[in-house]
Amino acid sequence: MESLKPLAAAPLPIGVFDSGVGGLTVLRALRAALPAESYLYLGDTARLPYGTKSEHTVARYALQAADELVERGIKCLVVACNTASAAALPALQQRYPELPVIGVIEPGARAACAASRNGRIAVLATESTVRAGAYTRAIARVRPDAEVTAIACALFVALAEEGWTEGAVAKAAAERYLAPLRAGGAGASDALVLGCTHFPVLLPVIVAAAGARVRIVDSAATTAAEVSSLLAARALLRPAAAGAPSLRFLATDAVSRFAAVGGRFLGTPIEAADVELIDL
Amino acid sequence: MESLKPLAAAPLPIGVFDSGVGGLTVLRALRAALPAESYLYLGDTARLPYGTKSEHTVARYALQAADELVERGIKCLVVACNTASAAALPALQQRYPELPVIGVIEPGARAACAASRNGRIAVLATESTVRAGAYTRAIARVRPDAEVTAIACALFVALAEEGWTEGAVAKAAAERYLAPLRAGGAGASDALVLGCTHFPVLLPVIVAAAGARVRIVDSAATTAAEVSSLLAARALLRPAAAGAPSLRFLATDAVSRFAAVGGRFLGTPIEAADVELIDL
Repeated sequence: MESLKPLAAAPLPIGVFDSGVGGLTVLRALRAALPAESYLYLGDTARLPYGTKSEHTVARYALQAADELVERGIKCLVVACNTASAAALPALQQRYPELPVIGVIEPGARAACAASRNGRIAVLATESTVRAGAYTRAIARVRPDAEVTAIACALFVALAEEGWTEGAVAKAAAERYLAPLRAGGAGASDALVLGCTHFPVLLPVIVAAAGARVRIVDSAATTAAEVSSLLAARALLRPAAAGAPSLRFLATDAVSRFAAVGGRFLGTPIEAADVELIDL
Repeated sequence: MESLKPLAAAPLPIGVFDSGVGGLTVLRALRAALPAESYLYLGDTARLPYGTKSEHTVARYALQAADELVERGIKCLVVACNTASAAALPALQQRYPELPVIGVIEPGARAACAASRNGRIAVLATESTVRAGAYTRAIARVRPDAEVTAIACALFVALAEEGWTEGAVAKAAAERYLAPLRAGGAGASDALVLGCTHFPVLLPVIVAAAGARVRIVDSAATTAAEVSSLLAARALLRPAAAGAPSLRFLATDAVSRFAAVGGRFLGTPIEAADVELIDL
């Protein structure tokens, strides 16, 4: 693609890509940080979840999604999915060298390193993100002496999608996944990264299971701050003269489910009519 | 395709198709009923779960999987996935008019009607199977006066895949999903269908939550019995002269995960070397 011309590109939307609805927690943080921007969100609902798939497959899916967003016109790409960030960020940056591409893992890792006093950091993520070791490597780059305990929490995704974010089931699941931390087996971690965009809606049960001394880091806010400074540095912030910002959604399947479940993650209702069904 | 010639077709394997590993509970019942048969199992692990996808998408995926199995040579097709049975059976039968195609819903519905005394039947299934109303219709065809309560139990799939088939989380989830039955809101159902192939591994917690007076129907065994009589009627049983039967697996992604998790469903270990990675 051609180099981005700030004047021409600034009015374009920020592209946000996720395997489904979880990335809407990142979009929520982006809208809070950058309310004057337009957004084009793509949820690959036909092929979710990414968290149990191989890195090769996830990378292929991420490139297809990015192609679709770039084709429609975006000024930067936020990979809101941890699994896709872990598997596909270098491939995306290689395919679109002129487009700013921001994943959620580096910002989350930096925030965790800042939040931890003792350098013992726990990461809750999907199977695939844990297997890829992406957080462990990203944290090691910032703080080489850090000890990272990564815990794969597959059930949290299902709980978040089911809307069971409190109650006996969520509580029991959080206690089981976080048992290593409570037992001190995770070296008494004092910082915990929510390494999957589905997990912030489970924050209260995770906090209760982790204990009060653990600081919880959600990469959504950190990622939004990074996007904000990047756009400012490149003169890509949307000019007021561009008019009212837009908010559009693309989904690869089950549009009505996307709207119904997505509202919980975005924090505001989504009308099915605002979601366009696409094929990748 | 051409009409199946019994003499030529009898040595061919039985094709079994599922969205992932859950259908291995059906393969397990088939092997118990028909130990002399060869089997070719296809798990569409790259695109699972089907249970949250639209019927149109599930039907398209099912046809692609069937094409692959037919291309490799099978004498009958068992659609082990409830969601795919609900969404794609007519389309599959239309595409392959000469090939016996058996789904799991009709056998399950018949077994439930036989098991129930009071005609009040509960069905536990995925979101997609419940939304499609497939069990409700299939039961009504057998027993028009039956009252069916269908409960979507998305979390059961995640619990089964995580291997959390007992303990506090599974117990709490079963109690929450089955609360309508215990409260009598489901009209005191006396039969309950496990309408998803993932659910049999959760049988003990489901039994505990449903109460002792409810008879549990697993469509795997009923489906295997139906396949057995169908092959006998069409002279398609595998002749002893054909030698030792084979058991092969195809998966569209994450072969090592398929082998690791699949063993729990098949009831016997699966070697990763016996699973072939394919692209649909």
